[in-house]
Amino acid sequence: MDDALLARYARLIVEVGANVQPGQDVLVIAAPSAGRLVRAVAAEAYAHGARFVDPWWFDPELKRVRAELAPEDSLEFVPDWYGERLTRLGEGHGARISIAPNTPPGLMDGIEASRAGRDQLPAVKEHYGIINDKTTNWCVVPWATVEWARVVHPELDPAAALAKLWDELTYTLRLDEEDAARAWRERGEQLYEAALKLDAAGLDAIRFEGPGTDLTVGLLPTSRFAGERPGMTTVDGIEHQPNLPTEEVFTTPDPLRADGVVSATKPLDLNGTLVEGLTVRFEGGRAVQVDAASGADAMRSRLAKDEGAARLGELALVDREGRIGKTGTVFFNTLLDENAASHLAFGNAYAIAVGAQDHGRINTSAIHVDFMVGGDEVVVTGLAKDGREVPVLRGGTWQLR
Amino acid sequence: MDDALLARYARLIVEVGANVQPGQDVLVIAAPSAGRLVRAVAAEAYAHGARFVDPWWFDPELKRVRAELAPEDSLEFVPDWYGERLTRLGEGHGARISIAPNTPPGLMDGIEASRAGRDQLPAVKEHYGIINDKTTNWCVVPWATVEWARVVHPELDPAAALAKLWDELTYTLRLDEEDAARAWRERGEQLYEAALKLDAAGLDAIRFEGPGTDLTVGLLPTSRFAGERPGMTTVDGIEHQPNLPTEEVFTTPDPLRADGVVSATKPLDLNGTLVEGLTVRFEGGRAVQVDAASGADAMRSRLAKDEGAARLGELALVDREGRIGKTGTVFFNTLLDENAASHLAFGNAYAIAVGAQDHGRINTSAIHVDFMVGGDEVVVTGLAKDGREVPVLRGGTWQLR
Repeated sequence: MDDALLARYARLIVEVGANVQPGQDVLVIAAPSAGRLVRAVAAEAYAHGARFVDPWWFDPELKRVRAELAPEDSLEFVPDWYGERLTRLGEGHGARISIAPNTPPGLMDGIEASRAGRDQLPAVKEHYGIINDKTTNWCVVPWATVEWARVVHPELDPAAALAKLWDELTYTLRLDEEDAARAWRERGEQLYEAALKLDAAGLDAIRFEGPGTDLTVGLLPTSRFAGERPGMTTVDGIEHQPNLPTEEVFTTPDPLRADGVVSATKPLDLNGTLVEGLTVRFEGGRAVQVDAASGADAMRSRLAKDEGAARLGELALVDREGRIGKTGTVFFNTLLDENAASHLAFGNAYAIAVGAQDHGRINTSAIHVDFMVGGDEVVVTGLAKDGREVPVLRGGTWQLR
Repeated sequence: MDDALLARYARLIVEVGANVQPGQDVLVIAAPSAGRLVRAVAAEAYAHGARFVDPWWFDPELKRVRAELAPEDSLEFVPDWYGERLTRLGEGHGARISIAPNTPPGLMDGIEASRAGRDQLPAVKEHYGIINDKTTNWCVVPWATVEWARVVHPELDPAAALAKLWDELTYTLRLDEEDAARAWRERGEQLYEAALKLDAAGLDAIRFEGPGTDLTVGLLPTSRFAGERPGMTTVDGIEHQPNLPTEEVFTTPDPLRADGVVSATKPLDLNGTLVEGLTVRFEGGRAVQVDAASGADAMRSRLAKDEGAARLGELALVDREGRIGKTGTVFFNTLLDENAASHLAFGNAYAIAVGAQDHGRINTSAIHVDFMVGGDEVVVTGLAKDGREVPVLRGGTWQLR
């Protein structure tokens, strides 16, 4: 990424993604390998009047050293101040920019699952609290590295793999458009329209049917796909775009109602452990059987983290118009892959996607793990409160009028 | 530095420098460019039973971006949690390893002094508190980078400059010895002996005389050069070596008694701003005139930080037997250069170097800035409480019996 494109990217992140305001503190969570982007974002944030850009560097290699060598009984330890750092940012109504991936896919290859899965850093449980408080304007964005590129394009030499990944990111981020900010506003309007139609359909549940999949996920009475406007808005009225790129509409399901079997349509990377060929059987909202061609132990260990870890906290729908799906590439990174296909997430739910009367019913957990279940071969059908079946997605295309 | 030498260096740091204990949390303060050493130290610390290695990455380039672009009234802001992070480490009796330089010399070249000098990070005032509490076992060590090497050896191409700097660091760290730990124990005993002799001489003040220098610095009634044993010892009895390399013996002077003029014998780097040709005139312990061939404004701005900033907090003596002076190189880094020559420091003092009855009399400040005043041409004389003059250093050689 040359300096001119880097500057445009940083401006998109600061203006459209996090929408940094004068006087704000800006937390930037990134691996040292994303240093160039962190500095470009910092320059742009200061130019927009930020008070302090606070980099939270997270070194994936150090995470691996810990998993290999740290005393067994220390692996889940997290210093208090890690969470407090986020809590304080929320109290101060700061901005938050997270650069993905913070751990390259496959980082934990060769480390036994019982050790690899126990250190959840850089994730901390306070993260979900400040999202639900809506006190921070935030955004997650990608940065290509050789370590990531070689997993995505193993058939190419490292330099070519990195170049190809950059081309794909530039395209999916709409940085190839003359006015990327405008392109995102337009796509945001489209997705918002789809979300409004979903809400208007009065759905009680959503069914996924496809190869190896027949799953019905219940919604809460006030589950909604659309907010007051496209993107998200903080308690202070700051509009921001939580993901760039983004192609999804999502809601918060009923954690007590999910029944059937679902097969993941893409692999996922669980903090460095690849989970491929995942299938999950749900009963009464709970994952009761988890299998995978690889990474099954890491997945099971993660879902055993707490009571809510094996229940659903998110249901997101993605059409085939998005640019991520069009690349045909599996990115082994949730930010990208979750926007290529409809998906579900284990663990903590977003309170913003339900009415206040249902805040007590949404799932809570220290984890949030997305897994992809959609694709052109997966039929998505809404089950309305009045018993009607409402076609939602067929062949990846919206069916709602 | 090849992997085998790196592993030996990391072991020296963990065993002799910080002396990490099982169950301890270990804070490692480093620039991202020192990543290899941080990971090697982490591996060694975990192998010694550390609970958690917490990297405090400090990116000098981001510091420069801030100095260039941040709003004028925000430049001194430091988030609360920066200091609390250190305070908590102290409360938990953790270990602390700092990798120098955290800002390469000359980082702030071209930035106006009024902006460059105001951001003191990565230094935070809580730092001095936990040193004086003696709750943490800690160590500062060097790591060579190209940015540093090109300032030290500008006559060489970058690769050669880096290689030469590594050779010099390997020599001064005594990593060329078969048993570096033993070499440091032996040198520690020598320095300890000199410190005991200084204390036995019953000095009330110390006079420096040389080219452009005639300065007398008063000591407190309980100022002492030697502790209970070589190196430092925490309140828990953990012996550690605060600097590697180290060649100095030091004490805490009387902040109200320093009179005369002193000319620095080496340049110093003030968080990225080079200060060369420094001369300071003292009256009643206070720097009343500060001049320099370069960096004078940055120095004056630092000394205006608070009431104690323009008074002395440390007096250290260095003989010519140390390996740093023998290289003949100016490293533009305090860790190295202060161990090549006798030095003084503006700002906060070390309570450990005086008796409890004088704790209330030592200097306090948010800064601590060392500057070198010794050399073969500088004569150091002790003025005893009984009026005798006691030769201390002549031609860089100890004169005490």
